[in-house]
Amino acid sequence: MQHIGQTVWAIPEGYIPSGSVSDAHDLVSHEAACFLNAGDHDADVRITLYFEDREPVGPYHVKVPAQRTLHLRFNDLSDPAPVPRDTSYASLIEASAPVIVQHTRLDSRQPAMALLSTIAYPAVPQ
Amino acid sequence: MQHIGQTVWAIPEGYIPSGSVSDAHDLVSHEAACFLNAGDHDADVRITLYFEDREPVGPYHVKVPAQRTLHLRFNDLSDPAPVPRDTSYASLIEASAPVIVQHTRLDSRQPAMALLSTIAYPAVPQ
Amino acid sequence: MQHIGQTVWAIPEGYIPSGSVSDAHDLVSHEAACFLNAGDHDADVRITLYFEDREPVGPYHVKVPAQRTLHLRFNDLSDPAPVPRDTSYASLIEASAPVIVQHTRLDSRQPAMALLSTIAYPAVPQ
Amino acid sequence: MQHIGQTVWAIPEGYIPSGSVSDAHDLVSHEAACFLNAGDHDADVRITLYFEDREPVGPYHVKVPAQRTLHLRFNDLSDPAPVPRDTSYASLIEASAPVIVQHTRLDSRQPAMALLSTIAYPAVPQ
Repeated sequence: MQHIGQTVWAIPEGYIPSGSVSDAHDLVSHEAACFLNAGDHDADVRITLYFEDREPVGPYHVKVPAQRTLHLRFNDLSDPAPVPRDTSYASLIEASAPVIVQHTRLDSRQPAMALLSTIAYPAVPQ
Repeated sequence: MQHIGQTVWAIPEGYIPSGSVSDAHDLVSHEAACFLNAGDHDADVRITLYFEDREPVGPYHVKVPAQRTLHLRFNDLSDPAPVPRDTSYASLIEASAPVIVQHTRLDSRQPAMALLSTIAYPAVPQ
Repeated sequence: MQHIGQTVWAIPEGYIPSGSVSDAHDLVSHEAACFLNAGDHDADVRITLYFEDREPVGPYHVKVPAQRTLHLRFNDLSDPAPVPRDTSYASLIEASAPVIVQHTRLDSRQPAMALLSTIAYPAVPQ
Repeated sequence: MQHIGQTVWAIPEGYIPSGSVSDAHDLVSHEAACFLNAGDHDADVRITLYFEDREPVGPYHVKVPAQRTLHLRFNDLSDPAPVPRDTSYASLIEASAPVIVQHTRLDSRQPAMALLSTIAYPAVPQ
């Protein structure tokens, strides 16, 4: 059961609203890539961000340890550059070991927050 | 990594509410097809819309440049015809190069908006 | 391009809330299976409903004409029996021609509605 | 039609908010794995939970009878340990017979609830 998942994933729909009615960490507007590494080897993950009108930015580097999950907020990425707010982007995720990726956004621009989620696209190079 | 994605995608659930509590561009009710073209070649995209009680309309033409994302609002399509509001439709997307497509709707008919999203269906001709 | 999609689909998560703050057709709590038939042949669709504590009910019969979409509300099914409200169910969808299916719920038990959506599971018999 | 689905599924995005504005069973904040077993054999299901900073917990055991659905709330799991609230987790689901799994969350921390849903990732061991 060590090798569940895939090594390349894509999330075409990225957008972090700049506004939030709450400053609480759990309720601030955010976008996350949630990883599951059910395997026995740590996964080194490279994330590249794509935009509508500028060159891609990245790679960002994160690690998903073996037998762990990581709920990574795009809000928290800073190196090589923070993710611009109120800006359409997409992300390509490449991992050194198989993982599974789910995309979630919590939008709290309004007092009543909204949620969306989907399993990301497991991109198999053709 | 140039050829990630697929060339035919389908979104069965299309519906643009005519109403919105806000006129702000980011908060008006809208439906989007979000594209990621992580490859080295621009993708020419043809979109055909299907309805419940009339002939299909299209193709609509958009371009997703190499190494770019495009968050296309169906609201903005106008040629050959605007997308009718408050009307059930579906869309078939054909691209000249592999892309990944995610479907998102923001519904702001009410003061508290709602969101939905899913990776579109990668349709492989049989 | 006539044969896009698959002929067997599953939606494990079914639930129609009995309550709605609005009686308007577009805002009443409902659950839909949205079909796209991009092919040249009408699709005869059989739907079977599964429950937690009783025998399956069905088949329900609907037709998705060639080159059309159908946004079918489970609320509207009546033969052989209406879908019980406030009850967990699941659905299995079998079509005579390839279609694509997306699952959507609009929950308006509260003044601020909520939405969810996902492409259904394309079940390939094993 | 007895063998629809797959035997290994993953849900990377798990999170049960501790707060709810309502104590009603249907409106309390909860997270569910919805199963469909359309086959002729009961499915014995093992669930393992993964965390960001501790060892995996499990397996949890549930049964999905033949020809039935089960909408399992992670809130209700107790053996070997309850699922911690306000904590990021992920789940790996292994079944003795093919099933289909859909992930749903209802978040009612605020008066206006939010919903998300996606078909889980059908993990094929590599």
